[in-house]
Amino acid sequence: MKKIMILGADGYLGWPCCMYFAEKGYNVFAVDNYDKRMLISQNNLKQLYKTPKLDERVALYNSSNDNKIHYKIIDVKEKEFRNYFKEVIPDTVIHLAEQPSAPYSMLGYKEAKYTIENNILTTLNIADSILNHNKECHLVKLGTMGEYGTPNIDIEEGFIEVNHKNRKDTFLFPRQANSLYHTSKIMDTDLLWFYTRSYGLKVTDLMQGPVYGLLDLSDQNDILNTCFNYDEYFGTVINRFILQALIDHPLTIYGEGNQTRGIIHIDDSIKCMHLSELNPPKSGEMNIYNQISETMSINQIAKHVSEYFKIKFNKEVSIKFFDNPRIEKNNHYYNPTYSKLNDLGFEPQLLSLESIDHIVKKLLKYKNLIDKKLFDPQFNW
Amino acid sequence: MKKIMILGADGYLGWPCCMYFAEKGYNVFAVDNYDKRMLISQNNLKQLYKTPKLDERVALYNSSNDNKIHYKIIDVKEKEFRNYFKEVIPDTVIHLAEQPSAPYSMLGYKEAKYTIENNILTTLNIADSILNHNKECHLVKLGTMGEYGTPNIDIEEGFIEVNHKNRKDTFLFPRQANSLYHTSKIMDTDLLWFYTRSYGLKVTDLMQGPVYGLLDLSDQNDILNTCFNYDEYFGTVINRFILQALIDHPLTIYGEGNQTRGIIHIDDSIKCMHLSELNPPKSGEMNIYNQISETMSINQIAKHVSEYFKIKFNKEVSIKFFDNPRIEKNNHYYNPTYSKLNDLGFEPQLLSLESIDHIVKKLLKYKNLIDKKLFDPQFNW
Repeated sequence: MKKIMILGADGYLGWPCCMYFAEKGYNVFAVDNYDKRMLISQNNLKQLYKTPKLDERVALYNSSNDNKIHYKIIDVKEKEFRNYFKEVIPDTVIHLAEQPSAPYSMLGYKEAKYTIENNILTTLNIADSILNHNKECHLVKLGTMGEYGTPNIDIEEGFIEVNHKNRKDTFLFPRQANSLYHTSKIMDTDLLWFYTRSYGLKVTDLMQGPVYGLLDLSDQNDILNTCFNYDEYFGTVINRFILQALIDHPLTIYGEGNQTRGIIHIDDSIKCMHLSELNPPKSGEMNIYNQISETMSINQIAKHVSEYFKIKFNKEVSIKFFDNPRIEKNNHYYNPTYSKLNDLGFEPQLLSLESIDHIVKKLLKYKNLIDKKLFDPQFNW
Repeated sequence: MKKIMILGADGYLGWPCCMYFAEKGYNVFAVDNYDKRMLISQNNLKQLYKTPKLDERVALYNSSNDNKIHYKIIDVKEKEFRNYFKEVIPDTVIHLAEQPSAPYSMLGYKEAKYTIENNILTTLNIADSILNHNKECHLVKLGTMGEYGTPNIDIEEGFIEVNHKNRKDTFLFPRQANSLYHTSKIMDTDLLWFYTRSYGLKVTDLMQGPVYGLLDLSDQNDILNTCFNYDEYFGTVINRFILQALIDHPLTIYGEGNQTRGIIHIDDSIKCMHLSELNPPKSGEMNIYNQISETMSINQIAKHVSEYFKIKFNKEVSIKFFDNPRIEKNNHYYNPTYSKLNDLGFEPQLLSLESIDHIVKKLLKYKNLIDKKLFDPQFNW
């Protein structure tokens, strides 16, 4: 039975990942330190519904499943993680233990420092634990498409061959991000690329776009749902638009809405992590995948959500444009390649009436809990 | 009177920098936390001769100079630095406050973590202090040519235009380093490039090669000499070769000696920092200079040193080759561009019989203090 350690197991992607891999027959070791809960409470935010902590979730999950999940509440950047790694000796580590919010990282020095320190030192501790205790361990690390920013050339998958003055070499695809959070992920990539080349680690780095939706496990108890943020810090655009439309709040678009991004459903995100897990690179090589299902502008996303609510609820959804609080180009070229995961068998689920309907059906019962104060942008970067 | 803050002021480059800028009429604020002294003592190393701490050095310097140097013993990554920055409001910051040894960074996890944490969090604290307290302040940051590694294409100065599928864009020149220390410098560059683009800071990033020699200030008391390391951690190759030859120790070459690097005399290094200081970029732009005077293979450096000792002392200098303890290519293409500083008026001093003679004359009196135990490589990366 393959041992998989999932770091950041209490998070939006982390917890569904734990259930998914347990269901697939892996021996799952879930790790978190509840930092995201702490950030949410410190910033007076809230999630759509309360979710139990990892101990309770795991107990509930284990009570009705043959494949048990193990868990440990520790900080991945500390020594206790190294000890746990040594104790478990996992075959694979899924690294989601990072501060995941771009706007949060831009709030001020405290938040900037927390983001840089947490994200880089967790990655360093993981890489070094693997190096010292099980070099065969495959590290699957969540990066972000935001590392690339919006360059004026096609975005390749991780690497690019550069021809220059009649000579050529292959390098990491150039990265220049628009937030400190995204920059911390670039620094992670630098670090892991160094560990891979120098020490022969096996690393898969997933350049993921904004995720949406809830994982669909067939017979899942609602209490095992993943956490769901819709505030401007931890909520992602599609999830926010759906909740806004549900309570007749205008969709909040920053800038002109022409910003284009790669998006992916949470089911797909987790399937991609599974495909990555099944296809480790050779020692010393780094797989980098652009983990998105399609690209779409913010305006196009708004159009999809509006159309759904028009057809299903006969609602006219309005749109409110805000001056863009983010530092990003309103109009830009965007043409990423994303074929490597498809080559491994990935069949993307696209944003559609059906996929929105599925999310709405899961969230409708929480409609009265939606707090519209969490929708308007409160701060400029 | 222009206020210049020099961080890492107790170091090999830092202290001569303080004296140089004071002599040029700057109001100098010297900052250090003595971490390098701590690392030297913790690792049972020693420098060629003892140097007084900053308080004593500054007192001695100030006693015979009209232009006084101020100093403060604080940690640049801590809050006390922000307070000092706010108090001084410097026009320019010279950032040398980093753990500067590649081999040290590769010793183990403790050293890796110290290097990453120190180098990145100092840079973050400086950038954020500038952002919050004086956005006009020009940050001159010491990077390293080692950030680029040894790519198979010509190394441009900081940036490269990439033509790809009939489109083009300009990016940071690709960076892939051979040590954790050098990787921490890449991460610094990522961070400063983000702060520059996003907040309009004025940053000059100096990609410097290995430095050698001692600063020549006309009427300087020997006790004001900069510190001089010749161990495998903090000593640089030319300085080591000269001391080895002085005591008839073979020159220690790692691998085949075909590794080629850009080198620079300490006088030139400091002149380049001065030229950089005098030519700040516009807000939002980053100047990146390849701060080297010439490129040379390790074998060529050994040949220069041998020739000098043959001619001046009629000594036959021997060479001892070691299996390369470093992770680096023994044979590689290396063709960096370095013309931007020349365009600003820089006239490089090359490695020659005269420049070696000048160093030997300054060090000869310390010959009996040279400890040959510090010459042989003790550890593999």
